[in-house]
Amino acid sequence: MNKTSNGNFFEDFRVGQEFRHATPRTLTEADAALNIALYGSRFAINSSDVFAQGIGLPRAPLDDLLVFHVVIGKTVPDISLNAVANLGYAEFRWGVPVYPGDTLSAHSTVLGLRENSNKASGVVWVRSTGVNQRGEMVLDYVRWVMVHKRDPQAPVQPTVVPTTAPAVKPEDLVVPAGLSIAGYDDGAAGSSHRWEDYAPGERIDHVSGITLEDSDHMFSTRLYQNTARVHFDAFAGKNTRFGRRLAYGGHVISLMRALSFNGLANGFRVAAFNAGSHVGPTFGGDTIYAWSEVLETAPLPGRRDVGALRMRSIAAKDCPCGEWPGKGADGKYHPAVVLDLDYWVLMPRRLA
Amino acid sequence: MNKTSNGNFFEDFRVGQEFRHATPRTLTEADAALNIALYGSRFAINSSDVFAQGIGLPRAPLDDLLVFHVVIGKTVPDISLNAVANLGYAEFRWGVPVYPGDTLSAHSTVLGLRENSNKASGVVWVRSTGVNQRGEMVLDYVRWVMVHKRDPQAPVQPTVVPTTAPAVKPEDLVVPAGLSIAGYDDGAAGSSHRWEDYAPGERIDHVSGITLEDSDHMFSTRLYQNTARVHFDAFAGKNTRFGRRLAYGGHVISLMRALSFNGLANGFRVAAFNAGSHVGPTFGGDTIYAWSEVLETAPLPGRRDVGALRMRSIAAKDCPCGEWPGKGADGKYHPAVVLDLDYWVLMPRRLA
Amino acid sequence: MNKTSNGNFFEDFRVGQEFRHATPRTLTEADAALNIALYGSRFAINSSDVFAQGIGLPRAPLDDLLVFHVVIGKTVPDISLNAVANLGYAEFRWGVPVYPGDTLSAHSTVLGLRENSNKASGVVWVRSTGVNQRGEMVLDYVRWVMVHKRDPQAPVQPTVVPTTAPAVKPEDLVVPAGLSIAGYDDGAAGSSHRWEDYAPGERIDHVSGITLEDSDHMFSTRLYQNTARVHFDAFAGKNTRFGRRLAYGGHVISLMRALSFNGLANGFRVAAFNAGSHVGPTFGGDTIYAWSEVLETAPLPGRRDVGALRMRSIAAKDCPCGEWPGKGADGKYHPAVVLDLDYWVLMPRRLA
Repeated sequence: MNKTSNGNFFEDFRVGQEFRHATPRTLTEADAALNIALYGSRFAINSSDVFAQGIGLPRAPLDDLLVFHVVIGKTVPDISLNAVANLGYAEFRWGVPVYPGDTLSAHSTVLGLRENSNKASGVVWVRSTGVNQRGEMVLDYVRWVMVHKRDPQAPVQPTVVPTTAPAVKPEDLVVPAGLSIAGYDDGAAGSSHRWEDYAPGERIDHVSGITLEDSDHMFSTRLYQNTARVHFDAFAGKNTRFGRRLAYGGHVISLMRALSFNGLANGFRVAAFNAGSHVGPTFGGDTIYAWSEVLETAPLPGRRDVGALRMRSIAAKDCPCGEWPGKGADGKYHPAVVLDLDYWVLMPRRLA
Repeated sequence: MNKTSNGNFFEDFRVGQEFRHATPRTLTEADAALNIALYGSRFAINSSDVFAQGIGLPRAPLDDLLVFHVVIGKTVPDISLNAVANLGYAEFRWGVPVYPGDTLSAHSTVLGLRENSNKASGVVWVRSTGVNQRGEMVLDYVRWVMVHKRDPQAPVQPTVVPTTAPAVKPEDLVVPAGLSIAGYDDGAAGSSHRWEDYAPGERIDHVSGITLEDSDHMFSTRLYQNTARVHFDAFAGKNTRFGRRLAYGGHVISLMRALSFNGLANGFRVAAFNAGSHVGPTFGGDTIYAWSEVLETAPLPGRRDVGALRMRSIAAKDCPCGEWPGKGADGKYHPAVVLDLDYWVLMPRRLA
Repeated sequence: MNKTSNGNFFEDFRVGQEFRHATPRTLTEADAALNIALYGSRFAINSSDVFAQGIGLPRAPLDDLLVFHVVIGKTVPDISLNAVANLGYAEFRWGVPVYPGDTLSAHSTVLGLRENSNKASGVVWVRSTGVNQRGEMVLDYVRWVMVHKRDPQAPVQPTVVPTTAPAVKPEDLVVPAGLSIAGYDDGAAGSSHRWEDYAPGERIDHVSGITLEDSDHMFSTRLYQNTARVHFDAFAGKNTRFGRRLAYGGHVISLMRALSFNGLANGFRVAAFNAGSHVGPTFGGDTIYAWSEVLETAPLPGRRDVGALRMRSIAAKDCPCGEWPGKGADGKYHPAVVLDLDYWVLMPRRLA
């Protein structure tokens, strides 16, 4: 009996199929420190227990994107080991905060399938959910990914393309229980700009760049127990269309988030992704820059102390973002763009 | 008085000589996370406190190979700072599990000595033992290593070649106290294959490859406070026969173990090494693949719930292992092979 | 309103100006492990809770230089984001030990300003202080740094050059409260040499070298949330006078300290820097070696058990230090020298 898994290929998936992903993981203070070491994030809420306690939390929660990395990493061996590309995210929403000592596990359900016209691959839509040791939802999202077929001749399931919401509604964003903005310390957080100070259309250049090494992105994906082959195998990488290893797209998201501190320091929680795409590949040696635009500002029902900002952040490689590289009127991206992410962050409001 | 140690050379060793090695080390949750980040290991027992508690342990124990790395690292300044090569291991057996918060220290006794015919070096056999803060054995092994002479003309001790057992007996393998397989969760562990499903002669290709960077192996050896010069000094490395730094052989063992998850996910504990050799050198940039053969299956005295598998695992560089690169009939290894390890893992049995 | 900070330029500073730096940081066991992994430090006091408890401390304190890295990192966005070079340190003194769980924050006051004759930059002197969550001083120092002007034409403040003490006095060194040398374990610490065994003028070659990769120094500076551009941005680095990224000078200090274990293993605490300069730049791929000279030995008031050694340590790149590369009679440094540091370490004395 063959005991080795080569992962699922497109023809192996069925709509409604459920996966319970392997290797629950207890996250610790070490994951918090490594998240800082890998991306240089400076948000006070994830850096200081004292700051977090000042806003009513038991201690510093783990970075929201770390939760994303761990959950998506668990899904890889079942869903995307044979992925061609990660295509998109929707209805992507964080739940209860995750603290050191919490153990995360993940499960997924197949929502849709569509073979590509070349019959070499197809698109798989899954809903994946991460939960803590109490079964509480920490992250829930729809992702679609292009997966190779094992055999181009293999028959496939009927096409099902699920409908996903164009954006997460403000009223569906989760504000951590017990959060109390009265003790929010702008000085420690590094900014006096609050929710009221941002307006739709405003653009922010996050200025700095950070170079990504092969060693860095492999370190992060191993930490997340993400086994996607394209990131780890330089030998096999030589024979791909890129001729080399590909950095994990999530690494770029975290770098963008860390860079966004300069301008968004009070955006203390990533609450949801509305949509996102990895526009181009990133490789070891690339330097990542980022800029953002405020798409929308939304109050939250029942809260006078916290509001939501809908941001669009663009990351570009080897291209400082003072001239706002993005998507042209022709629908084509500036060649330096590697990430285009539409997401909600929570930010303190001015208290009356 | 010279306060600097240049390490011991072959002519400095005496049979019966004892070493108490410096720098006890308290291992923490951070070492657990870094072990995952360095190798991408996915064994549930070392990843999840919930999983470990489900089988009767207080929390997730630290990876067995991490214990090996820390203990062997402590011995380097006294035993192998001037090593030419690490030649072999025998009677290599893990004791009580190690948990975050435990402090490890190590001591060694010289068992044997044999000068090489070129008089430039010789082989030193040592027995080394790692203990926790309660003096309990966590690892005990014999290692032999080729060590430079300071002066080829120096007189040496009489040759003593110790006898070592060809393999660790199943009855000498340590099963962690309190282990209870009734709560073992195959789904979380990632495999439904248990001890009964493996048969001698069965071969398993672990499929994936992982590229090792210079940054990675230096990071790991520094973490283990292993000071062996060949790993750290690129400047001196230029003048060696390899013309560069050499990766720590233990790094390759841990990569092999991590890769073996695909096919051996329920092999939850490395209990002993019977024999092992670092067949060839590994350098930054090499991609490691691995395959394994089941050599023997052994029940354990007094246990119906856990059995032992004697495995032979081969790691090869820049060579996927679908064609089982190994040792030919002529006794010569395939040129890609870098590690040949004979070891015992513990695995749950099917409960009646 | 522009929400992005480009850091302060020389003309933005005023004598007496105060900064409260952003992002307090809770340090954990992970920072202790990463400090070992980044530099290979082997001092027992920072490695073993058992050792630390043996000398009266609650547990292993965090490495003194880690405290330095974290505090100085916090000052960068306000003080040295636009630095040309870090010029010197004075009155640099550690206070209470820092333990896992402590939260550090930092503040600074501008002491002096002097524009350079080329009007393109100027020197800024600041006093910076790190404190723990109880407000206790953990580190206090004066640093001067050359900072770019935004606009060479901009008017500047009057020149004020502060006077700093040439050295920290032994009586001002902080011995951790509760320290009791009676239980100091030389064997665990790795040396039988105590304070009495060192004499002014004695030189120690620390022998080993360690190669620094770009990945390593970026990992460390991100961990310290140090945002200095010169370290992270390989793209912008191409257009600098070096044509590449520059390693963080503090990384070299920590490598020197780790290397100094071989000869100074009982120098358990770095208590003060008297003076220090980063003599030359270090880049990824350089191999760091170090040697030291004992400048002075000083008893400490009221203590028979601990004394202070004033050391001068030199780090050199790609140059083993057996021939003591340093500063020539002409005042010029050997071209391999990258660091010249004058500092105090505490060491146990022989008990009567």
